[in-house]
Formats: sequence, C-alpha cells, structure tokens
Amino acid sequence: MVPVMTRIAICAPSRSITHDDAARVTALAEDFAGIELHFHPQCFFEHGHFAGTDRQRQDALVECANDPAFAAVWFARGGYGSNRIAEDAIARFDHAAQDKAFLGYSDGGYLLGGLYRQKIGRPIHASMPADVRRSGGDAAVRRVLGFIAGDNYGLEPGLDGHPVVAFNLITLAMLCGTPLMPGLAGHVVLVEEVSEYDYSVDRLFFHVTAHLGGVAGLRLGRVSDVPVNEIEFGQSAEDIARHWCARHSIPYLGRAEIGHDAGNTIVPFGLARGFAG
Amino acid sequence: MVPVMTRIAICAPSRSITHDDAARVTALAEDFAGIELHFHPQCFFEHGHFAGTDRQRQDALVECANDPAFAAVWFARGGYGSNRIAEDAIARFDHAAQDKAFLGYSDGGYLLGGLYRQKIGRPIHASMPADVRRSGGDAAVRRVLGFIAGDNYGLEPGLDGHPVVAFNLITLAMLCGTPLMPGLAGHVVLVEEVSEYDYSVDRLFFHVTAHLGGVAGLRLGRVSDVPVNEIEFGQSAEDIARHWCARHSIPYLGRAEIGHDAGNTIVPFGLARGFAG
Repeated sequence: MVPVMTRIAICAPSRSITHDDAARVTALAEDFAGIELHFHPQCFFEHGHFAGTDRQRQDALVECANDPAFAAVWFARGGYGSNRIAEDAIARFDHAAQDKAFLGYSDGGYLLGGLYRQKIGRPIHASMPADVRRSGGDAAVRRVLGFIAGDNYGLEPGLDGHPVVAFNLITLAMLCGTPLMPGLAGHVVLVEEVSEYDYSVDRLFFHVTAHLGGVAGLRLGRVSDVPVNEIEFGQSAEDIARHWCARHSIPYLGRAEIGHDAGNTIVPFGLARGFAG
Repeated sequence: MVPVMTRIAICAPSRSITHDDAARVTALAEDFAGIELHFHPQCFFEHGHFAGTDRQRQDALVECANDPAFAAVWFARGGYGSNRIAEDAIARFDHAAQDKAFLGYSDGGYLLGGLYRQKIGRPIHASMPADVRRSGGDAAVRRVLGFIAGDNYGLEPGLDGHPVVAFNLITLAMLCGTPLMPGLAGHVVLVEEVSEYDYSVDRLFFHVTAHLGGVAGLRLGRVSDVPVNEIEFGQSAEDIARHWCARHSIPYLGRAEIGHDAGNTIVPFGLARGFAG
C-alpha cells in the first residue's frame, strides 16, 4: 500500500528566510513520514525589506495556491509585506485553492483574513518555518507538522462552539475597513501582540474594538517584548483589553495561548478544528 | 477704548506639561497684547501615562469648552490619550463650544476629528504649548499666538479652494471607522508622521488610503525621526504615499509643511483660513 503523501508548498509573502532555516525545518519534517515540504525558490529572494518584489511574491503565492499537487500553503515568515499583495493574489486563486489549507500568522494575517472573507481555502493561524530560529522553535515547527499529520495536541485550548479567528493586534487593526477584512459577527476573536508599547496596545484596542461590533467575544493572547517607555503606562495589557471590550459591550473571555513565541498555538479559522476540516 | 481681549483656555487631554513649560509660553504671550492664556490646573496633573485620570482630563476639557469667557481651547500637549475621552467629552459640549476654536495636533487629532465630524467649533491643526521645548520651539508657539491675533503668515502654504484637514498619520489610521472619524469626501487630506519605521508608514498608508475614498487628494507632510530598521525598506516616504494613493485612485498632490517640528504650519479644518473663520 502506497502511503498518502501530504505535500506542503512554502512561499514568503512578506520577508525572506535563509537556506539554513529551510534546512532545519526540512530536517524536522523527516520525522513526519507522510509530509513533504517544498520550499519555493522565492522564499530566498530579497528586495529591500521584502522576499522579492511585490510581483515576485504575488506570483509565487499564486503558483503555490493554484498547484493541485499541494494540500497546503505555509507562509515562510512574517515581518511585513503580505498586505501589499494579498488582494491581487487572492483574486488570481483558482479552484485548486478552494480546499487548500493556508497556514501562518503575524503579518500572514492579512492573507488569512482576506481568504476567510472570500471563503477561499482553510485559513489557519499557526507558527511558521522562520519560527525555527526562536528558542524552542523546533517545538513550534513540530506542532504545525503534527497538526498537518492529524494530531490536534497543538490546537488552542478552550475553542468552543463559536467560529474563531486569531490575529496579531496591529494586523487586525490595519485590516479593519479594508477589502481584506472578513465579517466577524458571532466569532470569538483572539489577538496577540509583540514589541509594541503599552500605549500603542491601548490605541490599537481603541481602534479594533470600534470595528468588532457583533463578535461573540475577545480573548487576549500573549503581549510580549513590550518596550520600556519613558513613562509607566499604569495598566496591564489585560486591563486595556477589558477597558475597551467593556466600552463596546464585547464579552472579554480571558486569555489565549497564541503569541510571537515557540508556544504559539494553532487556530483554524471558523468552526473547523482539525487540518482536514 | 478698552481693547478686546482674546482669552485662550489651555488643558491637557493627553499628557501633562510642566509649570516651566507654562511659564515659557506665558512669557511669549506677553508680546501679544490682545491675548490672555489660562492654563487649567489639570495641565499639570499626572496619572500614569496621562495628565490625570480619564475623568479628570474629560472634565477639564468640557469645562474649558463650555466656558463662554474663552474664544479658544488650546491642547497643551500630545503624546497619547485624547482618544480615551474624546467621544464622551464632545457629547457634553454645549452652545458655548459652538463657535470656539480648538487648536492642537498629533494625538490632539482625535479631538479635532471628532469635533469636525460633529460640526462643533473650529478645529485647527496647530503647534501646542509643549512644542516650546523643541529647538526653535518659540517660533512654533509665536506662530499660533500670531494666528490667534489675526496674522495668517503661519498658515500652511498652498491651501486651495478645497476643504482641508491635517492629521498625524497613525492618529488618522486609528480614527478610521470609529465614531470620531469625520466624513472627508472632497477634502484635501494632509498627513505627517514621526518616529515610525518606514514599513510602519507603508502599513499605515495601506490602511488609511482604504478609508479615504472620495477625497480630493492627499499631501504628505514631514516624516521625521524614522528609526533605523535592521533592513533598509527601499522606498522613501513619498514613494510610499504615491504607491498607496495610486492604488486607491487618490490624487497625490505633493508635500505639505506640517510635521512634529518647530516649522509645523497651521491648518484650519474645512474652508476657513483665519482664526476668526
């Protein structure tokens, strides 16, 4: 009996990764017999801040999405840049993208959001190949590979009967009101943040909560690497979340296990709970 | 004949100023015989990041706005925080606020935007008392005092027949879609930014331009103190503005003289060009 092979295409809609990153992730994937990783050459392109020009990044993403050989497209790294190509790329996706999983987070959220809005594929908040660089990063990569292989231990705990989405806070703030923003009525919304001042987190909550009318609730992931400001803000990230949720009558549902770290859990958008839906 | 006295109330909807700041600005105002400055005690309050609690800042602002003795309310300083009180404060403004000028910029933009949306008073983008700390800051303060005294030399050059607004870029981004966001159809929109990475400016333009359908055009003020990123972005602030304006068919109308510096020009919102309307 020939085992079924799950082929994963990896491209970089935002920043590039190195060949060393790819080698480390490929080595980890060897423990998963049913999974085959294909790093698109565009992962290693560099053009200023980005993994190639807007056109190169868009073309690679479309190629991976529209190739029926792949069960999933995994974004190599965040950073910044997928918002510059997401709308045009998604417009070029064909039937081969319909049932495909798309995995990533952070800056990858622009694509996850746009896909979810268009009901194309299965957007999944998950760690990315570049996370292998983190302390404990092997576990982050293994968690995603395990999930693809059918093991749900890496799922965000406490997912309930509501449809769910997970975003980096500033990514969600920038999505609001754009052609990539999905309707989130009835959803539990998970947010996490990294490297933003407390006052900036407060400012982002001011903005985001004004756009989340009708959601079922909000959960706060980790808010990490907060820079030290010249003056103490005086409220914790959870204080801030509670304040703005109360202001907009959004149920605050507590913490979540997502974040810019090796413990980042997996959150399939919507009601699906496993890789296969 | 008794000269007409123009009384200006100063309060701090965001961060506090010092008594020394107030003394320096008061000294500069002595050259303007018809102007009398009244620093509300709340200007010197401190509560964590802010010039007093939300309630204290809101009450002081409402008090200044609703006191018929004052021709104008001048925001003492930006920083962060006026968005936390703007909506509730404006809801409490009475007839005495109707014809009053409100002057400030940066974080003060939340109030200017909310007032402009509600057609209350005359919002004016202008330097603030705390700008006296800047190199050349005396000139920034004098420019505003001169404008109040009837001298229009400090106006943004090139204001044309279109109604106009001016905002800090991130302030405008955070305003979009909130109950404080004014309708800007037919307006020329001026934006400036400080202390944001190039990629962050690009991300803010992605967001803001998606919300500016129907504007007459955009002009770019100064983008200053850009932090050095680990990787060169590869596009100038003006490249970025042109890119996103083109994407949304917004006429890009060139540069403006606003910014977080002593040369920051004055921009009365709408079609008014002088202090008296």
